This record gives sequence, structure tokens and C-alpha cells, in this order.
Amino acid sequence: MADRDSLAASRFNCTVRERACYEAGIKMATIYHQFVGSPVNLSNVASLENSIADAIKVQPYVKDAVVRIDRGAFTENGDRYSYLSLTGDMIDAVVTIEIEDVILTSEMRYDRELGYPLMFISDIRES
Amino acid sequence: MADRDSLAASRFNCTVRERACYEAGIKMATIYHQFVGSPVNLSNVASLENSIADAIKVQPYVKDAVVRIDRGAFTENGDRYSYLSLTGDMIDAVVTIEIEDVILTSEMRYDRELGYPLMFISDIRES
Amino acid sequence: MADRDSLAASRFNCTVRERACYEAGIKMATIYHQFVGSPVNLSNVASLENSIADAIKVQPYVKDAVVRIDRGAFTENGDRYSYLSLTGDMIDAVVTIEIEDVILTSEMRYDRELGYPLMFISDIRES
Amino acid sequence: MADRDSLAASRFNCTVRERACYEAGIKMATIYHQFVGSPVNLSNVASLENSIADAIKVQPYVKDAVVRIDRGAFTENGDRYSYLSLTGDMIDAVVTIEIEDVILTSEMRYDRELGYPLMFISDIRES
Repeated sequence: MADRDSLAASRFNCTVRERACYEAGIKMATIYHQFVGSPVNLSNVASLENSIADAIKVQPYVKDAVVRIDRGAFTENGDRYSYLSLTGDMIDAVVTIEIEDVILTSEMRYDRELGYPLMFISDIRES
Repeated sequence: MADRDSLAASRFNCTVRERACYEAGIKMATIYHQFVGSPVNLSNVASLENSIADAIKVQPYVKDAVVRIDRGAFTENGDRYSYLSLTGDMIDAVVTIEIEDVILTSEMRYDRELGYPLMFISDIRES
Repeated sequence: MADRDSLAASRFNCTVRERACYEAGIKMATIYHQFVGSPVNLSNVASLENSIADAIKVQPYVKDAVVRIDRGAFTENGDRYSYLSLTGDMIDAVVTIEIEDVILTSEMRYDRELGYPLMFISDIRES
Repeated sequence: MADRDSLAASRFNCTVRERACYEAGIKMATIYHQFVGSPVNLSNVASLENSIADAIKVQPYVKDAVVRIDRGAFTENGDRYSYLSLTGDMIDAVVTIEIEDVILTSEMRYDRELGYPLMFISDIRES
């Protein structure tokens, strides 16, 4: 690990697995709280999806990020007022975190049974 | 104008020129307050610039939007912690608003003399 | 006017009335795009309303700001997952702008007829 | 645990300790990415600190949250343009998470040695 990696790691009082979980939570909430509210319709949805994923990949320990916005609510031939503001319920994201030998997959999507845009850890393993 | 255009227009107690100014202000603050805080470095700066401009073009009465993020503060060969959070001072934006026969140009950039990321109206005309 | 007021004013190519409209638009979109997404339920809604209004009053040329969040969607005796993320449709705001002798009132609320959280200028006058 | 607690828990493939770490990361990034960009000066800093803490306490599994904004950069007798936009470097936050028998403390502040506004886990224990 580089210098700042070691220095940052030294601030944590937990295992590398636990830290991977923490870093995953940070990334999911960044997606949500940075971008919810963005104006979006069919013309810019792909651009927004890509730029959210690209921004998350810049954060430390992100191995991969895929963001998909639900197109179900968009109007095909609307007027000027037919665009939407991005909400958490529209976001489907999968982020992979890698710290040392720990690889973690975190997901976020609207959970119909729960009635809530749940962020969760779907997999964590040591390679 | 379409139905919802007329309806929205009927809520305003001001001239079309004045409304164009108001709409311009909305767009500039959307750029600022929606996207300030985004993780950004050289790898995603173009993606972020484009998606901000694309999102603004979705809002009503935007004829064009160009967003440029100052690359001066980015680190060329940094480590994981070398990315930045987008600040208002890094944003250079030009947005053109068109309502009926009014065309307005609004700009935002860090004004060194003022020491402030100023949003302003640089041109307004009736065609 | 103080020095930086004159300097900022000199960047604008429009009337003081038009600038007041622009400044009003900035404030409305700040309310929307800075705070949409905030976790909110009955326990913190008053705190959030006040802090949004207080933040807007810090921006230049704001004479007054009142922000009210619609309590209609809140759950009275919910569980941990019963809180909401603030949306634009829940916001009712009235902001008064004063520049030189121009006083302007701008409002934002969900317009049922329009089906849109409209921001508009309800009054502008010279004192 | 209530119904939705169990349901949400069932989505996670990790231990309760690891989930507490994840929930902590979510809260820290909510503070950062929801509120960075907010207009702030001496007149509203306490209001903003309180409303950020109040908003975080609404999120699931937060036992306590304390948010403090560095007053070092504020101007005492400034003009209209002397306010700041909240940055991550100005935030000092301590959030306590409780899930089942796990209690976790997470902190965020500008780490001078690291040159970065670090979020970290300072303590995790089972009661």
C-alpha cells in the first residue's frame, strides 16, 4: 500500500472486512445524496447514469460501479415540464469495493416488499 | 406556446424579459447546488461537465448550456486520495435561455477581482 | 452600496429589476437542489425548514425567506424506515429579494393544475 | 426487531458488525454529499449544524449524531459576499450506530497529516 493508504488505514479501529463495509456505505450514500434532485428525462438519462458511475469510481477503493436509472417513469413525448427530478427510488446501483484481499459487492434499489430504496451488502469475500 | 407553457406563464407577475432572468438564475443555482460536492479528478471531469450541461438542458427554456470545470487544481499522478470534491470556484458555465422572443445569456465563473464565484447576466435581447 | 456590491453590479448587462429576478431564481433553485434528498420526518421537519430559510438568508440580497415542508406525507407512528427524502413537491417557499429600490417576492410550491413544483415571481415593485 | 427491520436485515450477506460499519458509512456520506454546498456564515452555522445532526438521526440505526462546522474560515464583519459554501474540510462529525448488540462510533474530520477529510470507524463493540 502507498503512504496515504497506510496512514488512512491506521485511523480505523476495525478489521479490513469491516472497513470494506464502511467504504461501501459511503459510496452508496454518495450516489444517493449527491445526485438525487438532478433534472432527468430520456434525453440525458444515459449521460447521468454514466457520470454518476464515473464519479463513484474516483472514490477510494472502488473497483467497479454500475448505475442504472429506472426509465419507467419517463414520458415519451412530453412538454417542457415533463422531465423528472431524480429520486432514490429510481436508482439501481451495484458497487464493488476492494481493500487489500477483501472484495465486497453492495447494491441499492427500490425494494418493493420493504417499500424503501434499500442499500445492502450482497457479497463479501476474501480472495 | 403549449398548454402548460401558458399556464406556467400565467403565474408570473412580471414581463417576459424579467421571467427570462428568473429562469436563468434557477439554472445557474441548479448547476451549483446540485453538483458541488461531486467527486472529480482528471478521469471523470469531462463526463461530469457533459452530464451537468445535459441535465441543465432538460430544464424549461434552456436553449444551450456549456459547463467547464477548471482542471488547474487536479493532480496528474496522484494516489487514491488525490481526487477533489467539486467546488463552485471550479465551475465555468454559460447558459442560454429562450422564452418567446427573449434570448438571454447567463454566465458563472470565479471572479478574481470580487473573490467570489459570480453568476451574472451578460446579455439579454429581444429577437 | 459597498465596494463588492458595485463591482458585482458592474458585471450585469441588465436593469436592477431584471437582476432582482435573476437573484430570486438563484435562491429558489438553491432551496431545491441543495436540500432535496434530505432525510426528513415529523421529528426534524421544523429543524430542516428553519435551517433552509436561515441558509437562504445568508445569500446576497435576500430580505426574507420562509420555508414550509408539507407534513401531509409523514407517518405518525412509523418504524425506522418510515422517514422520507425531501422532494421538491413537498416544499412551499416564499423569498423576498431587495436590490436598491426593487423589492421582489418569489414563491415555490407544487402547482396541482400544472402538475409541477413551480417557482414563480408573484410580485415586483420599486419602492 | 420489528417487521421491516427483519426484512431489511435478511437482504444482507454479512454479520451484524459488518452491517453496522456499512450503515455508518451511509450516514457519513449523507452528511457530506447532502449538505456540502450550503450557504453558511456565522449567522446560520449553528442552525445548519443542528439540522444536519437532526436529519442524520432520522436515518435507520442512528443512536446519536453530533455535527460541528469549523468557524475558523468565517469573516466577522463581512459584506454580502463574505459567506461561504460548506465544504467537507469544514465538517467535524461523530455518529453512533446501534444495531442489535453492536455499537459503533464513526467520525469525520479534516485529517491534516493525510490532507483529506477522512471518514473512519473509531470504535466498534458488542454490548
